[in-house]
Amino acid sequence: MSQTPQWVRDLKPSGPQGSELLKEERNASNVNVDQLATFLHTKDGRERKKRILKVLESEKAFDKSQNYFAGRIDRFETALKRAKRLRQLYVEQNWGTEERQVANELISEPLPYGLHESMFLITIRDQGSAEQHQKFLKPAENYEYIGCYAQTELGHGSNVRGLETTATWNPDDKTFTLHSPSLTASKWWIGSLGRMANHAVVMAQLVIAGKRYGPHPFVVHIRDMKTHQPLEGVHIGDIGPKFGYNTMDNGFLLFNNVKIPHIGMLSRFSSVDPKTNQYIRPSSPSLVYGTLTWVRSTIVMQAGGVLARGVTIATRYCAVRRQFQDRDAPEWEKGENQVLNYTMVQIRLLPLLAATFALHFTGKGMMQLYEANNRKIRQSKEASKDHARGAGPEETESSSDLLSDLHAISCGLKSLASSTAAEGLEVCRRACGGHGYSSFSGIGSYYADYLPTATWEGDNYMLTQQVARYLLKSARSVLKGNEPTNDTTAILSYFLSRQDQGAAFDILGDDADVVSAFAWRSAFLTFEALKHRDEQKRSWNSLLVDFYQLSKAHSQYMVVKSFYETLQASSTSSELDPDTQGLMHKLFRLYALHTLESEASEFYTSAAVTVRQIQLARSSAVMKLLEEIRPHAVRLVDSWDFPDWQLDSSLGRQDGKVYEDMFYRASELNPLNRVTVDPYPNSETLFRKDGSGELKSKL
Amino acid sequence: MSQTPQWVRDLKPSGPQGSELLKEERNASNVNVDQLATFLHTKDGRERKKRILKVLESEKAFDKSQNYFAGRIDRFETALKRAKRLRQLYVEQNWGTEERQVANELISEPLPYGLHESMFLITIRDQGSAEQHQKFLKPAENYEYIGCYAQTELGHGSNVRGLETTATWNPDDKTFTLHSPSLTASKWWIGSLGRMANHAVVMAQLVIAGKRYGPHPFVVHIRDMKTHQPLEGVHIGDIGPKFGYNTMDNGFLLFNNVKIPHIGMLSRFSSVDPKTNQYIRPSSPSLVYGTLTWVRSTIVMQAGGVLARGVTIATRYCAVRRQFQDRDAPEWEKGENQVLNYTMVQIRLLPLLAATFALHFTGKGMMQLYEANNRKIRQSKEASKDHARGAGPEETESSSDLLSDLHAISCGLKSLASSTAAEGLEVCRRACGGHGYSSFSGIGSYYADYLPTATWEGDNYMLTQQVARYLLKSARSVLKGNEPTNDTTAILSYFLSRQDQGAAFDILGDDADVVSAFAWRSAFLTFEALKHRDEQKRSWNSLLVDFYQLSKAHSQYMVVKSFYETLQASSTSSELDPDTQGLMHKLFRLYALHTLESEASEFYTSAAVTVRQIQLARSSAVMKLLEEIRPHAVRLVDSWDFPDWQLDSSLGRQDGKVYEDMFYRASELNPLNRVTVDPYPNSETLFRKDGSGELKSKL
Repeated sequence: MSQTPQWVRDLKPSGPQGSELLKEERNASNVNVDQLATFLHTKDGRERKKRILKVLESEKAFDKSQNYFAGRIDRFETALKRAKRLRQLYVEQNWGTEERQVANELISEPLPYGLHESMFLITIRDQGSAEQHQKFLKPAENYEYIGCYAQTELGHGSNVRGLETTATWNPDDKTFTLHSPSLTASKWWIGSLGRMANHAVVMAQLVIAGKRYGPHPFVVHIRDMKTHQPLEGVHIGDIGPKFGYNTMDNGFLLFNNVKIPHIGMLSRFSSVDPKTNQYIRPSSPSLVYGTLTWVRSTIVMQAGGVLARGVTIATRYCAVRRQFQDRDAPEWEKGENQVLNYTMVQIRLLPLLAATFALHFTGKGMMQLYEANNRKIRQSKEASKDHARGAGPEETESSSDLLSDLHAISCGLKSLASSTAAEGLEVCRRACGGHGYSSFSGIGSYYADYLPTATWEGDNYMLTQQVARYLLKSARSVLKGNEPTNDTTAILSYFLSRQDQGAAFDILGDDADVVSAFAWRSAFLTFEALKHRDEQKRSWNSLLVDFYQLSKAHSQYMVVKSFYETLQASSTSSELDPDTQGLMHKLFRLYALHTLESEASEFYTSAAVTVRQIQLARSSAVMKLLEEIRPHAVRLVDSWDFPDWQLDSSLGRQDGKVYEDMFYRASELNPLNRVTVDPYPNSETLFRKDGSGELKSKL
Repeated sequence: MSQTPQWVRDLKPSGPQGSELLKEERNASNVNVDQLATFLHTKDGRERKKRILKVLESEKAFDKSQNYFAGRIDRFETALKRAKRLRQLYVEQNWGTEERQVANELISEPLPYGLHESMFLITIRDQGSAEQHQKFLKPAENYEYIGCYAQTELGHGSNVRGLETTATWNPDDKTFTLHSPSLTASKWWIGSLGRMANHAVVMAQLVIAGKRYGPHPFVVHIRDMKTHQPLEGVHIGDIGPKFGYNTMDNGFLLFNNVKIPHIGMLSRFSSVDPKTNQYIRPSSPSLVYGTLTWVRSTIVMQAGGVLARGVTIATRYCAVRRQFQDRDAPEWEKGENQVLNYTMVQIRLLPLLAATFALHFTGKGMMQLYEANNRKIRQSKEASKDHARGAGPEETESSSDLLSDLHAISCGLKSLASSTAAEGLEVCRRACGGHGYSSFSGIGSYYADYLPTATWEGDNYMLTQQVARYLLKSARSVLKGNEPTNDTTAILSYFLSRQDQGAAFDILGDDADVVSAFAWRSAFLTFEALKHRDEQKRSWNSLLVDFYQLSKAHSQYMVVKSFYETLQASSTSSELDPDTQGLMHKLFRLYALHTLESEASEFYTSAAVTVRQIQLARSSAVMKLLEEIRPHAVRLVDSWDFPDWQLDSSLGRQDGKVYEDMFYRASELNPLNRVTVDPYPNSETLFRKDGSGELKSKL
């Protein structure tokens, strides 16, 4: 379609070229990108990514060149095509879970099978009986059943107990009746439901003989297998466009007394006995808990990488973009200054760069903790089976104690990590100046697609109450004189024992002391909250803001601690050369001190640090770290190892050809440029799509 | 298109209904909405809005029902249709500037004539000679010339001096040659250029006999008047999709040695003498300055209303939405709690509600100051004309001093106000929970369209340097012992005089003291910055972060002071009843104390307040204010007086029928629901658009 004249094609950006600037950046730093990338992603992980990238890049279905231009329906149609082709590739290429995940990350848009492949399959697998696996899981794994997970309702989000949809047991014909008693009972936001699913796992209030037993999962057939039309008594549709995630058909679903057979209720943990018509209680309610904890841990794990995309794009572009001269620069250095040299840009980007590593290491730690705990639970289960009717309860108690510890940490970290990533992406977009607003920056749409992560799997505000509840419980236990059993109770005990002597943390000189200062603040806020609640008997509602702050404080402590421990680990010193270790150490300090300074008032009030220390933390320590890290910024983002194909960003191009790419996309790929308008107000023509330009204007 | 079955149409949301809840809210507050609305918008303003709304609502072209669904090209086409019809209405209804502005605010989307009607006309009017008015302005006002204002380039945003496009004077044939020497010289982001304009005001470096004279404005004919095709040597196009603003054709523009006549250079202030081929210097460079100051003042003025849209939607929805029970609620109060009752929601929304009023009053004050200053400038001009060859310089000096004062304030306030509005809108969107993510919330697209305001008319970060520069200059003058001449130098002098005795502000008891505490902190930071720069000789670049904080501190002081002064004004006590005045007073305290607490560490360090005061500010003062303002929240947002048609939001409906409207839009208006997909991976069909549902699936 190019009508670009030759004289335009001959134009280059004015020098120095972006490619030269990035080359200079890379020459000025000794970070071993290959080594650091392998440290972050492992050798296997990197090879896998390369292999899959090669396959996807060569497939026409995954051509991204029109992504930013298409409207909702076209984007959904393209996404459907991609989803189908991707499923075929899973089979052709024999891709397992890890490969599938990498492929989805490279494609970087939500695909319409998304909820079928995740929550639908997982729920049936985890909560279905062997018979149900045979009946539902097999056709679902073959993509004959296309499913979704229908929990949220129009009037009910976080509060699962408030769901209105009912599943009433009919003792006569041994069926359940699914019903939506009101408009607010409509299932809403359900991914892969709007246009795709022919089956749904529906969370509904189980009702037996007029009594409610709370929400349970039911597999319901919702669309005809041949015509794909909704079945009788089922009303389904797409809920309409959203701020992002528009390649997904989030849907709504209403039931008008729809009957399903007894086998529809997923019965691994609880069920209805068809003979006695009695409810059978769940054997282990904490297992459902476990899945949520795992999902939250993966969100923490991914948050570092999510944020790293934005930081990569903004850092590269700020090294290419030049604007104004340095006011103090000598006459002979007349050229415009790289934007990345301005401290106002550094203070926005480099702490986020540090946060990418901090979140990555924290997430890794969480996943390991989760797996270690899972092993313990399995062991204690075996033990309790051995003891049979004898011991039981205690073991279950202790393993669920471990789980509730991990659960609380995962809540707080999920909230902190996803908020940091979402807000950080927007900071990165703005750090790109005006061009950050162009779709070609690649940050805006990614940010918009990521935003729901702050709401799903536990709203980021709601979750902080669970962290606070757990910390209050731990504090009460410590106050009773119980010995510390984990890190949380240990820092609370330490605080109690030192409370009257006060703290004297050398935050500017000693890294372990930085971690301790974060621990101290978290413990201080915990006991403050406890005083408000238990002594002053203040209402729960009046303390929500305190709880939010407390959860954030404790989670920041966890992140700082994880980062510190990673740097202490022997694997780190064996896998990274000393210079890179030193740089990671500076990133740790930048993350910690910048966070400390942003939350300064809590650090004062807890007397963890002095006013003078905070002043120094910013005016000397943080500013100096920015200066020291600045020369390595481009290589550090390089080590996140994002292929251009994945970023799909003009500004974040690895080769620095920012302006050429912006121009190419605008001038050559942009379909609006195929249209000639009639610009005069009183004519009847609006558009000429043939490009001839002959207008019936009134002039 | 409705295929909604009868049983679905019979469904209602579960009780209590949103309409009942909003009615209760309104019954529980005695705010006189009508009175407050008139105080905010004046009687004339409100009647004008009603009148125009009635016209627009009855016009088919302005039907908004498909706004959220359409893709870029369709949206642009609709916007073009609307722009044309709106122009016809201007003429038919004889609408002046104020009416036009109201109409655009009600339509609430950028329209393709936008830059023609603003910057193109304004620039020619302000900077053109009488002859140029005749030649360019007349056809432009008749919409025969459709224009744009082409300043920003692909490689040059804020730094206007760095523009690459040249306009070289040809002494032989008395023409200018417009040329783009590189790709980065391409004009970029130019509103109304991509598809619309046939003329452009182009900012280009004036070159005479090899010497550069800096950027000047040239009117250039760029597209054929009949075929609308680009003229020879001109390359134009739309720059592609953006995060928002997609109903506007922001464009690019390149010149390959295009000649324009001498009259093309707008010559009111500077020009090229065609006889001598000499440059004629501008008579008054500060006038261009003036336009920018005015534009920034309007941004401050509008920021309150922009934010109020989000706050209105979120407040109403949070009064309708119920989630969870209050943990401490007695058994007999079993229902779910209105989300607006949770303190964690209040702390996010109510300070923003207070900010809407704070920004509105500040903006109003700015506009008055601007007009007062303009009068003074005009007077001093007259005076200097009278003195003719005698006095001149001094008067110009003093009037431009006034202007530079106002200029600095407008920079800082523009930055603070637009950042507050943009970030506040996103807070409002998230306060709506999951549904905030739906396009039907009405916040997302509005936020996305508003975002560029943080970048244009001076990047919000860059601008803070100008404020700092001005404050440093004022501080130097005060240090020299000069008498205070305005408020800025007055607060700096006061600080100097009291520095050794320290401050003792009763921020919890006395409102004037709250304002003084803000002034104290601003003065403290000014002298700190001055010390760094003048005594310690630190580089400008190393101080950018300090300057940013300083500018924010000073601007927050200005806002707090404006709000305070508005409450003291006699017009306020005559126009508002005592209860409403009392409530506005609480909103003032909430805005001030919440800001103070968020910036706590600067207030400590400056010793404006004690740690104990800050602790009390939050734990008692702010929390108590939230409780006191909460019952009036819905009536307070009602007084912003937004018609539903303007908000176009399911969540923000005046009548509380939130869920009905969400459902209606999703189920009835959503074009994706007209499509039947083939969901199976190995079939060849993707979409059936006829809705028959007969699929050629392989099953």
